[in-house]
Amino acid sequence: MSTTINRYIEEHKDRFINELFDLLRIPSISADSKFKDDVLKAANFVRDKLIAIGVDKAEVIATPGHPVVYGEKILDPALPTILVYGHYDVQPPDPYELWDSPPFEPVIKDDNIYARGAADDKGQFYMHIKAFEAMLQTNSLTCNVKFMIEGEEEVGSDNLEGFLRENKEMLKSDVILISDTSIISVDTPSITIGLKGLSYLEVELTGPNRDLHSGIYGGGVANPINVLCEMIASLKDENNRITIPGFYDKVVDLSEEERSELARAPFDLQAYMDDLDLDGVDGEHGYSTLERTGIRPTLDVNGIWGGYIGEGAKTVLPSKAYAKISMRLVPNQDSEEITKLFKQHFEAIAPNTVKVKVTPHHGGQPYITPVNSIAFKAASMAFEQAWGKKPVPTRDGGSIPIVALFDEVLKINTVLLGFGLDSDAIHSPNEKYGILNFVKGIETIALFHQHFAALKK
Amino acid sequence: MSTTINRYIEEHKDRFINELFDLLRIPSISADSKFKDDVLKAANFVRDKLIAIGVDKAEVIATPGHPVVYGEKILDPALPTILVYGHYDVQPPDPYELWDSPPFEPVIKDDNIYARGAADDKGQFYMHIKAFEAMLQTNSLTCNVKFMIEGEEEVGSDNLEGFLRENKEMLKSDVILISDTSIISVDTPSITIGLKGLSYLEVELTGPNRDLHSGIYGGGVANPINVLCEMIASLKDENNRITIPGFYDKVVDLSEEERSELARAPFDLQAYMDDLDLDGVDGEHGYSTLERTGIRPTLDVNGIWGGYIGEGAKTVLPSKAYAKISMRLVPNQDSEEITKLFKQHFEAIAPNTVKVKVTPHHGGQPYITPVNSIAFKAASMAFEQAWGKKPVPTRDGGSIPIVALFDEVLKINTVLLGFGLDSDAIHSPNEKYGILNFVKGIETIALFHQHFAALKK
Repeated sequence: MSTTINRYIEEHKDRFINELFDLLRIPSISADSKFKDDVLKAANFVRDKLIAIGVDKAEVIATPGHPVVYGEKILDPALPTILVYGHYDVQPPDPYELWDSPPFEPVIKDDNIYARGAADDKGQFYMHIKAFEAMLQTNSLTCNVKFMIEGEEEVGSDNLEGFLRENKEMLKSDVILISDTSIISVDTPSITIGLKGLSYLEVELTGPNRDLHSGIYGGGVANPINVLCEMIASLKDENNRITIPGFYDKVVDLSEEERSELARAPFDLQAYMDDLDLDGVDGEHGYSTLERTGIRPTLDVNGIWGGYIGEGAKTVLPSKAYAKISMRLVPNQDSEEITKLFKQHFEAIAPNTVKVKVTPHHGGQPYITPVNSIAFKAASMAFEQAWGKKPVPTRDGGSIPIVALFDEVLKINTVLLGFGLDSDAIHSPNEKYGILNFVKGIETIALFHQHFAALKK
Repeated sequence: MSTTINRYIEEHKDRFINELFDLLRIPSISADSKFKDDVLKAANFVRDKLIAIGVDKAEVIATPGHPVVYGEKILDPALPTILVYGHYDVQPPDPYELWDSPPFEPVIKDDNIYARGAADDKGQFYMHIKAFEAMLQTNSLTCNVKFMIEGEEEVGSDNLEGFLRENKEMLKSDVILISDTSIISVDTPSITIGLKGLSYLEVELTGPNRDLHSGIYGGGVANPINVLCEMIASLKDENNRITIPGFYDKVVDLSEEERSELARAPFDLQAYMDDLDLDGVDGEHGYSTLERTGIRPTLDVNGIWGGYIGEGAKTVLPSKAYAKISMRLVPNQDSEEITKLFKQHFEAIAPNTVKVKVTPHHGGQPYITPVNSIAFKAASMAFEQAWGKKPVPTRDGGSIPIVALFDEVLKINTVLLGFGLDSDAIHSPNEKYGILNFVKGIETIALFHQHFAALKK
């Protein structure tokens, strides 16, 4: 049966890729209101493709923000139901000048598709739509399928919770599948069983009420950039542990066995550093690099600015300094609580020479997939069959905040069935997605449907 | 005699101001190559005005950069010669949106002229041209006068040293006058007897060779913004002393009498803070605010940037982080040596997780006017006569690097005869210059010529 599906996939591969190219051409940048029309255009495109593959119904459902595309095929109410989540919006592509080819003009180079959104998330969720087509066309659909593809993931999915709460009945399913993560390599398939949470804040320091001449006032008036640097530097101690009081209180440390299991993932530190042209890495003392990115909470300044940043020299003592700061969280840290702890601490450590404004952005809770679930077993079997190896379980540093939301609101577990690679450079210039990953991903998805239906009998 | 001059000034005041407005309208921004033509336009304007007031000759002299305007009137080679230095270029006006009126459309509000360059330096050097006109027209010129008005002061006067060396004979004088500083207030006239030096550098930190996803790599790869903050924070200790090894070695501490003399300057800390909307000030422990800005070396970050600084949230771990850092120096610190010490230290404290690039910008040496000189005495007498009070000697935090250059190359002392106010907001939006300061300044300059000639007999 799977050979029939695979043959279908092979036969229609070029058309699949052309359709994906059409989707990639739409600059559906949710963070930038200038692209509002393109975001809607992408939603309509997805709905049209769902209709084309033969769902019972597909619609673009409005929200207070960008719409959600919903589609479903109910083969037989008695069968298990798989809900596919994805997002048709993409990250901003800047800096444009670092792209080798334009971000919204997809090209194939070395069997990779280069475009913003190729891996995150268009190339990945589109595999589910093509897998459905392949199964339906070869008469091998084994489960009911529902699709929920939203347009605000890159900006926090602010309206998704409302959508979930209003449509609980419609969204009832046995498992949610998300393809928005990566495997270790094409030789070492893996399944992400853990995602970090996220806390994101913007801080603004104000010193004097206007920009000043740094000769006349320098030394006498505290410079908010210098103060911001000192405050940020104080957020970690000499062991690179975050100094916010209470930050680590709810962290559940991994057991020795769990740490060994995760350490199965092959990791070459020298290759890692060479890939990034680094002479050294650093992080929380007492943990390996993979543990630091995978199972430990972290803090990064994502952006900083203040004063004169143009060409040449300007001797200004600026009025303001700003930073965007985010923390990745692990179970059982709570995103809202961490945001509050950060805000309280940052305001408390500010000297009286500046005023501090802390503005929280969207956040998200950490999440773990239960590995003894039928869904996880089906995924593991599907991977083994398609890729020839049992997948390694990994804990990802990234956050997909709505996964915890699905658990809380819909009471449905999620399996992260991602096929990307770390080198895909998501959120960076020259994002790519491998054609091999795309094709094998469709095969794996179809196998998941099979195994899931079989295990559920 | 001075009453005749003052009457002339009063009679022609409006025309003087209109001419100054014409000069202020020219956006002679030396830091930005887009305004190259306007810089030349301003030079030509100044030359034309010099010709109009009756100098023997005036010309726009080309340099590898922006030209120098030179003019002279030799009344009698036996008389003392005064050389007037000024600059017709201005600071960039950004941020434009904070100006109440456009920076290059001068307006009068509350007896102040608002425009970029009003006080720094067009309004100030133009007083010398009008004082010359007033003296010549009332037959009361007492000294030979030379004018040297350059166009690169705001970007480091890179070509001035060459100009001085090539024209030593032409520039021979008994004193150099510069009007580019301020008085304490219209009720408390003062003369700046000391200027700080300047060391200005740009630093660039590179971590990974590309922007990364802060979830996938955060915690495992050092974030160059975090590292930059830590390095900048380490440049001062808990007493706000700069930690660069050797930084203070050549500083000549003031004697107790010198500190008392400078403390004569009235200073209201609460008013100072209220003017800037500050709840507190901070600086090097053991020194007052005026001492910190006037006689102590300082360090300020003038600009900082890195990562995502646009609208909304982007979870990037950036490849690079940048800062513009400057230090104000006091006698006998050497600008080139301090620049070298900073570079060595900054490179040494960088962890192996980043690569550092340090690029020096223009600098300048500190300077002290000898108060027992004839020129200083003439200035003091001129101030007392025009303003009704003996001027207080002050040490300014600003730098006019070429003052030390004049001393070194031309072997001529400089008297800083400035009439601005700290509230003029030079280098900031809404720069202004008082009409009273402009008019009284012209009167004081004419009196200086008188007293200088008399003392020199």
